[in-house]
Amino acid sequence: MCELMGMSANVPTDVRFSFSALSRRGGGTGPHRDGWGIAFYEGRGARAFHDPQPSAESEIARLLRSYPLKSEIVIAHVRRANRGRVALENTHPFTRELWGRAWTFAHNGQLKGVKRRPLDLFHPIGTTDSEHAFCWLLGQLRARFENLPAEAALERALGSLCRDLGDLGIFNILLSEGRSLFAFCNKKLFYIERHAPFGVATLVDEDLRVDFSDETTPTDRVAVVASNPLTRDETWSELPLGQLSTFRAGSLQRRDR
Amino acid sequence: MCELMGMSANVPTDVRFSFSALSRRGGGTGPHRDGWGIAFYEGRGARAFHDPQPSAESEIARLLRSYPLKSEIVIAHVRRANRGRVALENTHPFTRELWGRAWTFAHNGQLKGVKRRPLDLFHPIGTTDSEHAFCWLLGQLRARFENLPAEAALERALGSLCRDLGDLGIFNILLSEGRSLFAFCNKKLFYIERHAPFGVATLVDEDLRVDFSDETTPTDRVAVVASNPLTRDETWSELPLGQLSTFRAGSLQRRDR
Repeated sequence: MCELMGMSANVPTDVRFSFSALSRRGGGTGPHRDGWGIAFYEGRGARAFHDPQPSAESEIARLLRSYPLKSEIVIAHVRRANRGRVALENTHPFTRELWGRAWTFAHNGQLKGVKRRPLDLFHPIGTTDSEHAFCWLLGQLRARFENLPAEAALERALGSLCRDLGDLGIFNILLSEGRSLFAFCNKKLFYIERHAPFGVATLVDEDLRVDFSDETTPTDRVAVVASNPLTRDETWSELPLGQLSTFRAGSLQRRDR
Repeated sequence: MCELMGMSANVPTDVRFSFSALSRRGGGTGPHRDGWGIAFYEGRGARAFHDPQPSAESEIARLLRSYPLKSEIVIAHVRRANRGRVALENTHPFTRELWGRAWTFAHNGQLKGVKRRPLDLFHPIGTTDSEHAFCWLLGQLRARFENLPAEAALERALGSLCRDLGDLGIFNILLSEGRSLFAFCNKKLFYIERHAPFGVATLVDEDLRVDFSDETTPTDRVAVVASNPLTRDETWSELPLGQLSTFRAGSLQRRDR
């Protein structure tokens, strides 16, 4: 299994605090030592960092824990391999371009038989179930919409495709096209929304403490999604199972389905 | 304009020496301060680092000058913007997946009217001529071959498509699908092949000197391609104009066309 971490914010936001917790679970406080990756969106652009080394020991992870990259959307993953050997090409998050948008995907779980699903336009580079599922999902989206659809239509399609994949096993994912952070889980994902008045938080995994009021303005909104809560003095909520959750500009969108 | 650097090797090879020279040209010894990027292939996998900051000042570039990432194929670029603002999405190299392969592309030059070329499967995320040309090129390849073709057929198609794009202006590029490093130029690209007996080389851009015999075995072969020679005590050759050059496992392949 693996752990996921995602962030959505209404202003470019430094994610070092959350990444510090997640990256320690990659071979330090957690067993997810088979590689890690993180993608940062800055406007339409996205840059990802990948390393097949354990994140707790990785020089690249060390740089990202100390160097403030500000981003509106982040997707990160620490890997414990089940299908697909430890290798760069099997390291999440995976990225593809569709409709002139950079799509990023990370998955926690296993999907029995997903590789029998036929692919058309998108093909995996590595050998994980996860990348196959991502390629299938994007191919299905492309077959339904020739161009980027309106948000509601995209969410309906994504929800339906995620439930379909979720029938094959555990399917906890984070996905983005640079505008929204989509989350789907059929086992477990937690989230927290932070906004004014901002308080103090302490990581679960190390004695790192931050006072968000020092680093924010009153209109800032930040949502963080994670496989397990990252802080011990805040209240994290579980995301509903079997349902697509959409975060936009730091807020969970509640939409009748 | 911009500068390019590429590497092809028959064993995973540390490219810090060449990258040190290139990255100093991004706002240090050269004017290419509008972002930089580098992609490393490790088997079928590829990871890229992008930064819209000048490479001479970038923390990420600093890490890559000191941390030995070993790779068989590298493509790097420092940017001086002409078309497309300074932004992450306009930072080379660009990547796309085609036929289950990670394709990487970097360009030096300008292409008049390239944005009028219609696109089908691949679309730019940013606003550069270069990314449009890359998307057009991959779309044309996909239209000609449903699956990854044999090397000779791929090279013929690429050569013809590059000459076609080269009719629009300056088109010096590096391209890879993880197996070969392809280079095309209609203005200027230099290369060097290093093999036993290995000697000493000194960078043009700083007093950094390396004795390759300390870091290699007698069967190692490494080829480096660059917009301008990176070392001052070796003999760099110009690549032929208007022709695709293919480097594989550290050697320039000579093939009748």
